[in-house]
Order: sequence, then structure tokens, then C-alpha cells
Amino acid sequence: MADDQKIQSLGGGSLLIAWQLKGKRVLIVGGGEVASQRIKSILHTDALIIVVAPSKGLHPQAKKFIELRKDRITYVDHTVQTVEDLELDGIHMVLTALDEHSLSHEIVSVCRSIRIPVNAADIPDLCDFHFNAQMRDGPLQIAFSTNGNGPRMAALVRNRVQNALSGHEGEAITKVGILRNKLKGRAPGVGGKVGKERMQWMTGVCNAWEMEDLAKLDETMMDNLLDEGWEKGRYIPAAKDLGIKQKKNLGWAVPQHVAVHTTAAFVLGVITATVLLTFRPRH
Amino acid sequence: MADDQKIQSLGGGSLLIAWQLKGKRVLIVGGGEVASQRIKSILHTDALIIVVAPSKGLHPQAKKFIELRKDRITYVDHTVQTVEDLELDGIHMVLTALDEHSLSHEIVSVCRSIRIPVNAADIPDLCDFHFNAQMRDGPLQIAFSTNGNGPRMAALVRNRVQNALSGHEGEAITKVGILRNKLKGRAPGVGGKVGKERMQWMTGVCNAWEMEDLAKLDETMMDNLLDEGWEKGRYIPAAKDLGIKQKKNLGWAVPQHVAVHTTAAFVLGVITATVLLTFRPRH
Repeated sequence: MADDQKIQSLGGGSLLIAWQLKGKRVLIVGGGEVASQRIKSILHTDALIIVVAPSKGLHPQAKKFIELRKDRITYVDHTVQTVEDLELDGIHMVLTALDEHSLSHEIVSVCRSIRIPVNAADIPDLCDFHFNAQMRDGPLQIAFSTNGNGPRMAALVRNRVQNALSGHEGEAITKVGILRNKLKGRAPGVGGKVGKERMQWMTGVCNAWEMEDLAKLDETMMDNLLDEGWEKGRYIPAAKDLGIKQKKNLGWAVPQHVAVHTTAAFVLGVITATVLLTFRPRH
Repeated sequence: MADDQKIQSLGGGSLLIAWQLKGKRVLIVGGGEVASQRIKSILHTDALIIVVAPSKGLHPQAKKFIELRKDRITYVDHTVQTVEDLELDGIHMVLTALDEHSLSHEIVSVCRSIRIPVNAADIPDLCDFHFNAQMRDGPLQIAFSTNGNGPRMAALVRNRVQNALSGHEGEAITKVGILRNKLKGRAPGVGGKVGKERMQWMTGVCNAWEMEDLAKLDETMMDNLLDEGWEKGRYIPAAKDLGIKQKKNLGWAVPQHVAVHTTAAFVLGVITATVLLTFRPRH
């Protein structure tokens, strides 16, 4: 029943997705502060970026991106007056970051008519999609959306999450990716029985090992893991059996501030008891 | 210099975005387990969903969604043989979850030609975008992408984050959204000086208040906050001045397991000292 109610109340959110831009062309119109943020977001992907903006208004950060990433950014020094100034042929996505909202409206309207995904900064109603507060650690990307209820809050939640993670997650994910490719090399094939077995074994390893131990895997250890585990009846060896020194395993990641406060609490306990016992009234 | 290097190494990721689907039509082809997950993802938004799949192969969860959300889901009982079986007119997004990869290929190819964003389950190369591990707490949505390096790892990071959050974040964001609307009511206008002032004051409140205190705000308190703060020179009152009882403020959210372990460490300290002092050799 509770489950049914939950289903009936689903709604009101966005679809958070990881858009694939490798080799695609993204047009950014504008060169101010927001445009700089957009350039940075797109540089995280492997898209080709075209920035159209007058050089006199170019934000220092935008300038820096354009200078340092000539391999990825084509800069067109031009003040856009009308959508006809833009070459939309072969463009996969358009982002406007303009003070002139009427020009943004015009660009969005043309993009919509030819079905190019578009985002107009500061005009939520014109956006096919919104940007989010984000964090990145190697292959790990985390996005925080408040669905328009306060961008500052998204950043605060991100900070909270950043403090809670150990910082080894990205490295662990990288290593799991390499291990998975090694396993595919030993047991190739798409889908079917072997695909299922691979998935089960990989899931088993990810579940059994601490994230911090996965992060320590090197190529030799991975080969050992595959020899001693996968090859021997799909067994899952413990990290310590492969010579990976474990730090005290408390069953979860211990962020630094937690370790500090647990230690502080212990010391405080010792002091409290010592004081009470030493200065207790003697009968 | 370090900054320059960082810019030069940006890449390899996806663009994590919040796609807006309110009132848009999303076509899901297939009715199995993955299709059920897709239906659930889309139900989180306010899209209209069309599910095309034969009733005999319908997954129990898919069946449940279709029964319970007739307001949002149109179900077509049909075994799709070719892309021509599908009505793509007016469709904003297409998701396939089919065993027949060749049919998925055909559908994707047609969608691409008419620029409909498309995702084909299990065939990453055919996807304009990928789905992610997610969590939701009211207006707060968090997405976790490993960029294809291991879906299990994304779920593990999500669990870690879920444990680290206090559970009050969604409520706090809801309240901030209401407060922001109330403020806009008092000081209306888009952009310009008033827009900037509103943003600064809201940011000030979000930064100064604990998330847990924001979550406790009710309508009366919000009005007080606006009367005593915004109206009196854009001042930012403390939570306790508005009668919001604060729990001990340690400067961050204390997840339950941390509280438990800090207490345990203190008790252990007391016991250790007591034992040592009580049984110490007496000279």
C-alpha cells in the first residue's frame, strides 16, 4: 500500500542524465562569466566547442580557456545581432549566455524548430535542460539538482557530500574499470552466460572490497585477483589475501573529521574518568 | 600554472544535466525489467509516457506503474516488429529496452534522422545520453555517473552519500524555495538591483543557517525572518533568534553512526581510565 502511494506521488522532478558529447559540436553564444562556466562544463566532455562573442567583452576565464584549449575550442570574434549571424549546421547543442534576452528568445525559437537541444542562461522557461552543481573525481561525476529551489542549496549539499567522501572513490572506479577490461580480455563475449558471470563476479568484488582497497589495486594485483579469484571457480579473494594492507576496517569510510572526533571523544572520556576518580571524596 | 594544467587535462566526462520533461511525450519501447526502470525514471518527471509492449511479456512492476498511473501512462499492447509500428510524431524522447538489438538499431537510426533524443538499453554506442544511479529527497535529486566504469560502483558511492546526509536536506531546500517565493512577493522584479539584493540575502541565509534549521522553518517563522531580516536593512538573523531550537551545533551535520561512535569512544575512554586507575599497582 505504502508502495502504491509512493508510485502515485512520483513526479515534480527532472530527468538527470549523462549527455554524451564526444566529438559533437556545441555552440556557446556569449563570452561573459556565465559563458565561461558553460565552456568549463563542456570541456569536461570531449565535445568541440565554438564560442561566438566580441573579444572586447571576453571574461578573463573564457579567454584563458580559449587560449589553453585551442585543440577543442574555436573562437569567433563577433557580436551576434540576430540568429542569422550563427551557423547552426552540424551543431548538436546550443548554449546562450547573453544579456539581451530577446536575442536568446530568437535563438531558442530557431533551435527548437530544428530540434537542437538548447539552454538559455537566466531564462529557465526557455531551457530544454538545466545545468547543476557538480563535483568530479576522475571518472566519477556527481550532479546536484534542487529543481529550481535554490542554487546555493545545491552547492551546500555538494560541499557536505564532498566532506563525506574519502577522496578515493574516483581512483577506485578507475581501477574497477581497468579490472573489468582485463576480465573481458580473459572471458570475451557480449551478453549471454559469460556476460552474466562476469557481471556477477565484478559485482561481488565491488561489494566485498572496501573502496579504499580497490583504489590500491595495481596491474600485478589485478592479475593475481583474476588468477586466484575468477579462474578458480569465480571465487572472490579478500583484499588482504592479495597483500593489500588494510587500514583499520570500521565498515565504512572514515572521513578525517570523524576520526579526529572519535579520538577526541576517547581522550575526553579518559580525562573525565581520571579527574573524577582522582578527586573523588575519599571515605 | 597548476590551474593551467588542470584546464589542459579537462575531458573524458559526460555532461550531467537535468532534462526538463514537463508535459512532453516520452516513448518507451519494451515492457521488461529495464523498461520498468525507465518508466520509473520518467515518472519522477512530469512527462506523458507511452509504453509500447506486448501484454504477455509485461514485467509485474511495469504492469503496476501502468495500472497506478493511468493519469500519466498510455499503454499500447503491441509487439513492435519494425520502427514503422511506432508513431513518432510529437514524441520528444525515445527509450528502447528490447532484447532484439537489431530493432533498437533501426529505431535509433530513425530517431537520429529526425533528431529525437534516444537511449537504447544495453547498447551504449547508440545512446545520446545515459541513465545514472540516483537518489531523491523531495526537490533534491543527486545523480552518480562513473562514465561507464562500473554501475555497481555508482550505487556504492550513492549509498555512501546517502549515509552521510542527514535526511533533512530535501526539506531544507523545499523551505528555501518557499522563502524565496515569499521574498519575491515582497520585492518583485526580474534581474537588476532588486534581483541581486534578493540573491545576496537568500545566499546569506543559506550560508548562515544550518540545513537542519532551515528545514524547521514554518510560514510564521518565514514571515518573521523577512520582517526582522530583509525589511530591516537586509539583515540576517540567527536561527535561534527566531525561536528555532538548535541541536548542538558541531559545525556540520552529524550522521547517526558518527554520533553513536563518538559516544562509544567517550564511554570507552571512561572505562579504560577507570580500569587503569582502579587496578593500578599501589606503592
